[in-house]
Amino acid sequence: MKPIKITLVLLSFVCGIASASSTDNEWVDLSHRYSSNTVYWPTSERFQLDKIFVGETDQGFFYSAFKFSTAEHGGTHIDAPYHFYKQGNTVDNIPLNKLIGQAVVTNFSKQASKNRDYLITVKDFQHWEAAHGKIPKESIVLIRTGYENYWPDAKKYLGTKLRGEKGVSQLHFPGLSEAAAKWLVTQRKIKAVGIDTASIDYGQSNMYKAHRVLTAASTPIFENVNNLSRLPATNVWVVALPMKIKGGSGGPLRIIAKKYNSGMVASS
Amino acid sequence: MKPIKITLVLLSFVCGIASASSTDNEWVDLSHRYSSNTVYWPTSERFQLDKIFVGETDQGFFYSAFKFSTAEHGGTHIDAPYHFYKQGNTVDNIPLNKLIGQAVVTNFSKQASKNRDYLITVKDFQHWEAAHGKIPKESIVLIRTGYENYWPDAKKYLGTKLRGEKGVSQLHFPGLSEAAAKWLVTQRKIKAVGIDTASIDYGQSNMYKAHRVLTAASTPIFENVNNLSRLPATNVWVVALPMKIKGGSGGPLRIIAKKYNSGMVASS
Repeated sequence: MKPIKITLVLLSFVCGIASASSTDNEWVDLSHRYSSNTVYWPTSERFQLDKIFVGETDQGFFYSAFKFSTAEHGGTHIDAPYHFYKQGNTVDNIPLNKLIGQAVVTNFSKQASKNRDYLITVKDFQHWEAAHGKIPKESIVLIRTGYENYWPDAKKYLGTKLRGEKGVSQLHFPGLSEAAAKWLVTQRKIKAVGIDTASIDYGQSNMYKAHRVLTAASTPIFENVNNLSRLPATNVWVVALPMKIKGGSGGPLRIIAKKYNSGMVASS
Repeated sequence: MKPIKITLVLLSFVCGIASASSTDNEWVDLSHRYSSNTVYWPTSERFQLDKIFVGETDQGFFYSAFKFSTAEHGGTHIDAPYHFYKQGNTVDNIPLNKLIGQAVVTNFSKQASKNRDYLITVKDFQHWEAAHGKIPKESIVLIRTGYENYWPDAKKYLGTKLRGEKGVSQLHFPGLSEAAAKWLVTQRKIKAVGIDTASIDYGQSNMYKAHRVLTAASTPIFENVNNLSRLPATNVWVVALPMKIKGGSGGPLRIIAKKYNSGMVASS
């Protein structure tokens, strides 16, 4: 193991990310917790945990168990292609190879911090590529807007605390433009995309064009992703495993990532 | 990649598992789907999926979304240490390194097919080791009883279709003895355990001794695991990612595995 660790440390040093990102080749958890504080779409049913039993049983030992309910599309979750595309895979039928692999962590925090309605453009990705290299084919593209820092403050994260239809009209957070979504699937042939906001489309969207382009191209979408600031821009490996809901349009997602090394590529 | 593939083929050949197990170094999905057919404990609330919307929106595009409810401990799920140990980690606090790593697939199908109330012994593991080698320290130990083949037929899988307390008394499926649980945590220092039945304790247990030993030793338990027959006995790599429920005693688990190669060890 030693030589690989040394290589990674050198790589980190060369990339200038040693202090900011995860060290020692550790997995980074990119999922938020589910609780009553979890951010949901204004019209979605929130996560609710109900106690079945917590305490000492008649037999004299400790026992705890709960049940819960939630909308599929809240917290850190996946949109299956079927969410916006009738012929698309439901969440239980997404091939595992679409959910695991090499990733890049793009970063448009600067633009998004100046404009809550920012739409990420093809040019933004091209500028990112000029600095970090071309997005490899079959990559998982993670998009950092910096809005993960606002979690779980709905007013800052979504643009509003209002619930219901009134809240939907007040959503202000950045997203992916339709043109950039098309470019990612046709010009970079990515396998999945993730973002640190509540939706791959920006808050003011009502036509959900990025969702429709991506799902029609069988591209799973990870939303409300966390901790992207802990990853380097490239050499990242992602494992994103959704709850296996038969016929589901999406669902809770546990997504983790680590710095990539040659051993991991060999194991893909 | 070529040299690694060749090594794997040779390894498979040597182990005599080439035809029975997964080929081409593919991930194997060890999770059952959640649906109204998912097997639950007789006293547990079952999985329920409710439609929010499926069809064409007013804006002219397809959209689908659902919500759901479930007990934490049904389908392919994890028991967090807190399930039976008050000081144990809740599901959201289980370190990722307890959930990812090298695994062995033990097999006691022969014993379990003859006796639905079979309790797996220390000797059973020692016999398994005589054939396959010592269980490495920090392994994830997967236990195959063959009962995965009965899923989702509750009568065959659990021993009863009855629901409620009446059903609990009629549970007949094999499990891990208290002594074997102790041996695994103290003598083999395993990091997690999984089984292809509804509970790590056998159906007729009412003291849940294996659960108590394992959870007191901070050992996560994976239950209702699927597809163990598709894995070789050794050289297996597991990634088990539970839904991140704050304060949860367990929850839905997506667990996958693949044949292990040197590259994956390097990446641990």
